[in-house]
Amino acid sequence: MIDLYTAATPNDYKISIMLEELGLEYQVHPIDLSEKEQKEPAFLAINPNGRIPAIIDRDNDNFAVFESGAILVYLAEKTGKLLPTDIKQRSQVMQWLMFQMSGVGPMMGQANVFFRYFPEKIPAAISRYQNEGRRLFEVMNTQLATNTYLAGDEYTIADISTWPWVRIHEWSGIDIEGLPHLQRWLALIEQRPACQKGITIPPKAELSDQERAAQIQKMLTN
Amino acid sequence: MIDLYTAATPNDYKISIMLEELGLEYQVHPIDLSEKEQKEPAFLAINPNGRIPAIIDRDNDNFAVFESGAILVYLAEKTGKLLPTDIKQRSQVMQWLMFQMSGVGPMMGQANVFFRYFPEKIPAAISRYQNEGRRLFEVMNTQLATNTYLAGDEYTIADISTWPWVRIHEWSGIDIEGLPHLQRWLALIEQRPACQKGITIPPKAELSDQERAAQIQKMLTN
Repeated sequence: MIDLYTAATPNDYKISIMLEELGLEYQVHPIDLSEKEQKEPAFLAINPNGRIPAIIDRDNDNFAVFESGAILVYLAEKTGKLLPTDIKQRSQVMQWLMFQMSGVGPMMGQANVFFRYFPEKIPAAISRYQNEGRRLFEVMNTQLATNTYLAGDEYTIADISTWPWVRIHEWSGIDIEGLPHLQRWLALIEQRPACQKGITIPPKAELSDQERAAQIQKMLTN
Repeated sequence: MIDLYTAATPNDYKISIMLEELGLEYQVHPIDLSEKEQKEPAFLAINPNGRIPAIIDRDNDNFAVFESGAILVYLAEKTGKLLPTDIKQRSQVMQWLMFQMSGVGPMMGQANVFFRYFPEKIPAAISRYQNEGRRLFEVMNTQLATNTYLAGDEYTIADISTWPWVRIHEWSGIDIEGLPHLQRWLALIEQRPACQKGITIPPKAELSDQERAAQIQKMLTN
């Protein structure tokens, strides 16, 4: 049994999708970001960084794992799935996973901040992060022109890590026009039952744009 | 033989330090960011993202690896060093590596952008990233209060990934006052010959603050 501490955000969906793909039994513990539950001592004992998602593996001495990328690697290595063992294939997955963790996620996150909720409207900051997001999309589009999935011919944790972010490109104000391979890949991943289910866990509250922006602000800044 | 494509930046020093720690034979290929060499077709064939560092492993069919975090994992798995095989210890390293890749690096990078070179002075953006950098330092300080190294009792790629960033905290305008455990760790890592040598590869041009800022701008935005 895996305990999953989560909220309705792209980084969290990575883990619900992964658990659905693996068919592992798990229990969802929604974390209320608006109540800053992720900053309470009980949660800081699981993740000292006070961020979601995090898991506890009840079948491995209650081992706690934080950082979405590290959780994906842990679950892949635990089950022997979605991360090849061949050193080259494995490294290709790790390269695109790191591309998401260090690039796509942080840059789209900052685009969201400045585009959606920052108290000042700072056009130069908005365009900085939207342009960087678009540039990263173009890099992916080139990669996907000759590869079915991000890291090659196999669906892996690199795709699981990246899809929940790219699919909300409109929220970040970044278009995908003229990127046919990225569009193909988005549609391909979207067909997977585990992905369709994963993005409903935990259920998302019906929020106004303003409320959603406030939630993202808390997620990003606390 | 490893070919290392690199410049004098924190992400690059991770790899020169790692190669020095491992005692692997490597050849340095300095990339001139001011000439945008990282955007030339020859380099894009190595890293489609057009960023440094990247390596080619001449002993593994000229296999190319990009993203500093993925290069560290590749070299650790190739040599069986600095990344434990025990699933828990290994995951702890991966968690702190991801903490650096998704947090410390991107947030200190943005602090540098807005603090050092952004054409507009935007105090809210400067403080946003400096505050987040300080918060991440505090998380590390707590971790290091009860652990010799970031991921426990052993020096690992988590430390190699993080030290080149934290050591330039003054450049980012983020202080480490009141964080004795982080200060202890900085001094501990600094004593390692591989770290002392790694941060001299490639040699850094003598630049004015303005020139250095311009170089960082190119590194971060292209």
